[in-house]
This record gives sequence, C-alpha cells and structure tokens, in this order.
Amino acid sequence: MKIEKWSVGEVEFAGPDGGNPFLNVQFGAVFRTGGRSVRVPGFYDGDGRYVVRFMPDSTGRWEYETFSSESKLSGQTGSIDVTEATTKGNHGPVYADPPAGFVYADGTPFFAVGTTAYVWTHQPQAVQDQTVATLAKAPFNKIRMCLFPKHYTFNENDPENYVFPKKGDGSFDLERFDPEFFRAFEKRIEELLAMGIEADLILFHPYDRWGFANMSPEVNARYLRYAVARLSAYRNVWWSFANEWDLVKERPVSEWDEFFRIVEAADPYQHLRSIHNCRTWYDHTKSWVTHLSVQSSDVESVDLWRREYRKPVCVDECCYEGDIPKGWGNITAEELTRRMWETSVRGGFPAAHGETYMNDDDQLWWAKGGTLIGQSPARFAFLREIFEQAPRTCELEPKRNVFEYTALEKDGEWYLAYFGFRQPRKVSVNLPDSAHFAVDIIDTWNMTVEEKAGTFSGSFQVELPGRPYMAVRIRRST
Amino acid sequence: MKIEKWSVGEVEFAGPDGGNPFLNVQFGAVFRTGGRSVRVPGFYDGDGRYVVRFMPDSTGRWEYETFSSESKLSGQTGSIDVTEATTKGNHGPVYADPPAGFVYADGTPFFAVGTTAYVWTHQPQAVQDQTVATLAKAPFNKIRMCLFPKHYTFNENDPENYVFPKKGDGSFDLERFDPEFFRAFEKRIEELLAMGIEADLILFHPYDRWGFANMSPEVNARYLRYAVARLSAYRNVWWSFANEWDLVKERPVSEWDEFFRIVEAADPYQHLRSIHNCRTWYDHTKSWVTHLSVQSSDVESVDLWRREYRKPVCVDECCYEGDIPKGWGNITAEELTRRMWETSVRGGFPAAHGETYMNDDDQLWWAKGGTLIGQSPARFAFLREIFEQAPRTCELEPKRNVFEYTALEKDGEWYLAYFGFRQPRKVSVNLPDSAHFAVDIIDTWNMTVEEKAGTFSGSFQVELPGRPYMAVRIRRST
Repeated sequence: MKIEKWSVGEVEFAGPDGGNPFLNVQFGAVFRTGGRSVRVPGFYDGDGRYVVRFMPDSTGRWEYETFSSESKLSGQTGSIDVTEATTKGNHGPVYADPPAGFVYADGTPFFAVGTTAYVWTHQPQAVQDQTVATLAKAPFNKIRMCLFPKHYTFNENDPENYVFPKKGDGSFDLERFDPEFFRAFEKRIEELLAMGIEADLILFHPYDRWGFANMSPEVNARYLRYAVARLSAYRNVWWSFANEWDLVKERPVSEWDEFFRIVEAADPYQHLRSIHNCRTWYDHTKSWVTHLSVQSSDVESVDLWRREYRKPVCVDECCYEGDIPKGWGNITAEELTRRMWETSVRGGFPAAHGETYMNDDDQLWWAKGGTLIGQSPARFAFLREIFEQAPRTCELEPKRNVFEYTALEKDGEWYLAYFGFRQPRKVSVNLPDSAHFAVDIIDTWNMTVEEKAGTFSGSFQVELPGRPYMAVRIRRST
Repeated sequence: MKIEKWSVGEVEFAGPDGGNPFLNVQFGAVFRTGGRSVRVPGFYDGDGRYVVRFMPDSTGRWEYETFSSESKLSGQTGSIDVTEATTKGNHGPVYADPPAGFVYADGTPFFAVGTTAYVWTHQPQAVQDQTVATLAKAPFNKIRMCLFPKHYTFNENDPENYVFPKKGDGSFDLERFDPEFFRAFEKRIEELLAMGIEADLILFHPYDRWGFANMSPEVNARYLRYAVARLSAYRNVWWSFANEWDLVKERPVSEWDEFFRIVEAADPYQHLRSIHNCRTWYDHTKSWVTHLSVQSSDVESVDLWRREYRKPVCVDECCYEGDIPKGWGNITAEELTRRMWETSVRGGFPAAHGETYMNDDDQLWWAKGGTLIGQSPARFAFLREIFEQAPRTCELEPKRNVFEYTALEKDGEWYLAYFGFRQPRKVSVNLPDSAHFAVDIIDTWNMTVEEKAGTFSGSFQVELPGRPYMAVRIRRST
C-alpha cells in the first residue's frame, strides 16, 4: 500500500462476527519505521471486519503488526509505503503553536476562522450535500459539529442513524456501535478534509432526549475509544469534549478529566483537545487542554485570557448572526463581525460564526447547515485574508505600545489596531525611528484596504474617515 | 423678605474687612420655624460683606439669628416669609428615592438624563452664554461640571478667575477665596436652576497644573465648607467629590472619607453626594454616599450594581460620542445611545452624554460647552420622554420574568425590554392571564412608538421588524 504523509492508511482483517466483538475483542496494530513505533487502536466495523486506520507523519516504509485478544487477529504483519504530502492543502494535522498560535504539522501557520453547524451530519443527505456545497465557497477552515444528535429549539428531528444501534424494542444498544452511522459521518469528515476544514468534533453535549448525555462511565469510555479508533487517522479531527459542559449537571469535573485522559492515552496523533463552556469555565490550565474553546461575548478579554493561560484562544461562540427570539442567536452581522475583529486583534481566533435566521423550513445553519444568507461570512473571509497575510500568531502579542489601543504587534515589524464602534478621525502612532513603515487603512465592514502614500516612522498621527469598524495596519517597509 | 419654598433667601451683614475674614471669622445663622431649627453656614463675600443663604423647605415664617466669632455679626435677627413653590419647575432639590430612584422634594420623580461639560464655566462669557442657549434646547436635566479648571487634552486655556485669588507673585492665596469667581459661577448655577438642570458639582479632580489637586487637608476642608456655605442654598446643587478620584494618587481613601463627612456635616439640605471613578471604585456602601456615579462601559452590569448597592446608579461616563483619537471620546451616537438604553432598562440613569467631535476651535462640548452637533442628544430626549411616561424608578425592578431578556418591570403593570444590537423578528412574552395589556414597539434610534393593534395577555410572541435598537413596552390596559 502506498499513501501520502498525513493521509489515512487503512488495513482490514477478517475475524469473528459472533457474540459482541465491540465489547469483547481487543484489536489494534503497532506501526514501526526507523526506531519509532506507534500503537494504533483498531475497531470492529461489523460483519466480521476489523480495521486499523493509520495516519503516518513521516515518509518511508512503515511496517505493522497487529495485536488482539483473538489469536486470529494477532501477529498479522504488513507495511505501508509513505510518500511526501503532495496533495494541495495537505499540511498535516493542526497543533498548538506556543504560546498562543496554531500550526499545521508541516509548519504552515493555521489561523482558525470557524463556524458552527452542530448536527449538519444528522440531516437528510440532500441537506448535508447542500452544506458541503456551501462550505466549499465559505471562508471557514474549522467547523464545530456533534457526534450525537441534538434535542433543542430548532433541533427536533431524528437522524437516520445514531452512534449506537437500536435494539428490537427501540431502545439503544449501548454495548454496540453502528458502523453505518460512522461510515456516513466519516464520509463528511473526508469531504471537510478535502476542503481544508478542521472538524472540531463535539463528543458530548447536554441537549438530549435519547439518553446520550447520561450514559455510564463504562459506556462513555468505550464510546470515546471507539471514536478515537475510527476517527483519529483523519488529520482534520479536533476533539471537543463538550458543548456547554457545565450544563451537564449530573457529571462531576473528575469525569470530564477522565474523558480527556482516555483520549489523550488512546489518540496516537495527539489531536487538539478542548472543552466549551456555557457559564462556568473548565480549568483550561490542565495539561490535557491544548487550547481554549470559549463561549463569551466579552471578547475584549481575549488578550487577558491569552496572557493568563498561555494557550491559543478560540472564541467559538459569542452570539450568532440572526433574528431568532433567543438572545444568543440574534445579533447583527455588524456586531458579530466587530466581536470577531476584537477577538483577532487581541490575539485570539475568530471561530464563532453561526447563522440563525428564521425560515419556513426551520433549517438554521447553526443547527442543520444548508445555506448561508447573512452578511458576516464575507467579512470573515476578509478577516481571514488580512490575518493570513500577517506574521504567525505565535509571534504576535496584544500590546499598547504603538497605539493608544490594544493592538496586535510584532515589535518593529507589524502592527494592527482595530477601532470597532469607535470613529476617531485621527489616531496617534508611536513607531520606532529606526525603520520605515507602510500604513494601511482597513475598512473591516466595507472590506477595503487603502495604503497611505509614503512611508512613516517615529511618532505621527494617522487620519481616518471618522466612521466605525476601521482598522490600521502598519508594516515595516525597509 | 418673602421668597418661595426651595428658593434662595439671602441675608447680608456688614462686618470687619481687615485681616483675613475668610480665615478668621466664623459666621452663620440659625433659622427657626415651628419647632424646627436649621443651622446654616454663612460666608465672607469680600469688602466687609457677610452673607447667609438659606433654602427653606417649608412655608410660613422662618426667623433667624446670626452667630459669629465677631460680636458685631452675632445675635442679629430677622425673618423670611416663605410661600408655596409656584414657579414652574420648582420641585425642590433631588434626593435618593430608595431603593434605586431619585425624587424631587415635592414627590415628583426625577429621571436623570445627564451631560458633561467639565469646565464650561471657565470659558469666555460668550461661550458660556452659548452653552446656556444650547442647554435650553437640549434634553438634559443634569450636568457634570467642575469648580476647578482642568488641565488636560483640549483643556489648555486658563479661566478668568479661580476659586482662589492670586497673590502679587502670581501664586494662589489658598487662605482666601475669590468672590468674583463664585459670583460668576453662581450666576450659571442659577441659570441651570431656571432651566431645571441639576448642577452635579465636581469638587476635586486630578487634571491640574495649578496645585488644586494637591492642597493640604486644612485648605481642602476650608474650600469644602466655603463651597457648601455659598452654594448649598441652590436647590439644583449635587456634590460630586471627584472626577476619577482614583487618579489622585497622593490622596488616601481616608481623606476622601473626611471630605464626605465635612460636607455631610455642613450642608443643611443634605444634597446628593457621590464620587466618580476611573478604574477603581470608591466603596459606595459607605453611608454618606447617596448614589453611584459610575464610569464604566460595562453597562450590562447596571442591574447587578443596583442589586448590590441598593442605591440609585447614575452612569455618568461610558465613552462620549465623538471622533477624537482617545478611546474614551470617539464612540458612535448609535453606541452611546445603546449604552444609555441598556443602562436605563437595567434600572440605572442615563447620565453619560458627552460630545467630543474635533473642530477648528478645539471647543469640545465635553470640556468647554458651546454647541452640540451629534446625533445622540435627540435620542436622549426620546429616552427621557419614554421614561418620564414610565412608573417611577423606585417601583421598577430589572428582572427576567416576562421577557427572556433583562427588562424593567413593575409586576402586573408595566414592562420594558430593549434589544440593542440584537435584531429578533419575534420575542416571547409571558404576561399574567388576569389582565389585558397594550404592547408598543419602540424604535429607539428612529424614535418612533407604534402600538400593536388589540390587547394582550398570557403567553404570546411579539413580532418585531428584525432590525437593531428596538424596544418593547407593555402597559396594563385593563
């Protein structure tokens, strides 16, 4: 078998299909190259099929040998030849880039611009296809999405399949998994991967009428390990342990800790791990938390969180563009765009897109995917473009050195200040005398960049048009 | 002498003009009516003139007898006949109306809608006249203004007179006061009074090049007592002990406490007392603080402060409408208006108007007064109109009973929710079944009120136009 680096190498074995292999058969493989070995969990795919998926992170020949509680599945060997990553967009998985950035495994910086469509993979296939078509043209490189279906306002429909199969009496068989569900889910993850979109997979959430929010610790652990075994070989997978973890009232913090530890131990690639809050924050200083997944409208605090935690800060929810009755889903495109720019110039990641405009089909993007009609996606695209031209996040610090406002700065090189609902006609700038700089006036709402004539150094004032949503970018020119 | 209730009765006596009467002569009078007596401090007005100003709070004959360290000024008697207050707008001084309202002495509710023009009385007379003309047409019933001049950006000019006279060497004589300054200042307070505008007098502030921010405790105490003796008989006077008290770095809290105690002991009428912060709050639970004078952009917390302190909350500063480089003076009219509506529906008072548009004369309203060009004053007028039609503030509570948003409520009678940059097309309302209510859709930016056809009760949804800055008011109709 020949695959490229950071793609999925899948090997399949025939084994017993009697009893309950989900519960009773341990299975996996150790992959070796040079002096390295990687222990990769396998999974039962139904119908006597046992699968190991492997995502190699280096080129050359990887040899494997299976291990199992079943002798027939144990000691099988083979190899995978791994070539350089040549597929466009294959930069490997995303990791934290200390102190507060993200970086692909190949060293390319990753600036997270995210949206949310919680249960888009739980909708009819035609709607899912529509979502994929929308995402193909949208500016997002990360999407938050659930494994379990959601029971909530505008989220009333049942999916075709679930993580668990149903028993004859209609109840869920929590001792098995439904390979049909996972195969369909994986197809969508692969489509996201092909579009360069990270799948921020929400493993648990409180919005539930099926019992998935209240399973036993044993079932939860089995579910986590099965998810890791099936999904971790996709380079675009991130683990989000919860949406609004603090609303799962019955679960003590120690159980959440244990979930992190299970995935940390099982995931051969150490994908990103986070947990999203409603009101109460999980302790993000814990070593297994790779970055902050924040719900908050208080985005003026992003620079403080960054300084406090020394981890990347993803603002994943700060109220959605929309017009529904609920306060979390009816801010203007202007206000969402403003919050995302505030987030970004304070050194965080603008991952809180969501759209909640009412329509006759009750098909709201934030829940079901489909189409986007709002005014903010174009502004997310512009924001992403500006930041993808910027120095990498790990080199930038929110400071107040050069502007009288918190601005993102790389000393002596690059500066970006954003004024939101402020409308100054002038702002003071205090640059080093020792270099020359270009000054750009950015209109974040009208999506224009205008370079001021000439070069600048030392202390001076920049004239602005006296309207809101402006930014000033300064780049070293000599 | 015959005056009406809550107006100024002034009696004058001739006395010694040698030495330094400001320092050496104690003087005042006790006013008596029925079984009551009020001890009123007098003041030296220069040129051998000793004055007592008295603001009677009840009708009938008030007899007085002077007291003094000078025998000639002691034991003089006379009387003032006090008639009912018939002058339009004479409702007496404003007091706190527990738990969180303001009320005039005659029982009329006072809804504070305030502006700031810190040193408008320190400008040339023509500019002061212009300010008065502007205020006559403006919606404000409170203005924040300083006794001392201000040294700050856009505040560079010297006034004609100061609280203290200059000595021959150009330094200030801190053992005397300048009656010229006070007479001119009082003329402006009287003009405000005639327009129904409360003068929120800032007694100290840190923006100083003359030494007034760093006087000795003895001089500070004498200054406070002199100000009280001269100014407290004006019913529209409020005492604001500081602007940005925490920026006066040299002064311990105990000295600020002492200032409050001095004024509390000296002021016969117990005018409102507050102290305004920059970053650090003075402890507003102290008994001598009558209400909160808050600088904060975090106006979504007004309901929390109200609940915490059980005192009226004036948001006196939350960034001004303008376009100057400084962040505190360049928000849009939309954003200032939004903050003031948020303040108001959370049970606070929208007293934070200020205007800081740059102009060729460096004459910014917030500093020097003059004219207003912004878009927010018309919205303050509309806001005031809406709240002057509302139940009194002391009967209203910010709650979440009837709307899914914090709204101002008088149970079973009156409700007001405001949606700011939210743009719901519908909001849920959960009213009592037992009564019928009228529903008004208010556009706070376009300043329209539209009553929905019919009456409403119980649970229902109100349709809104799906744009920002809307409010819904509900009034009991049967």
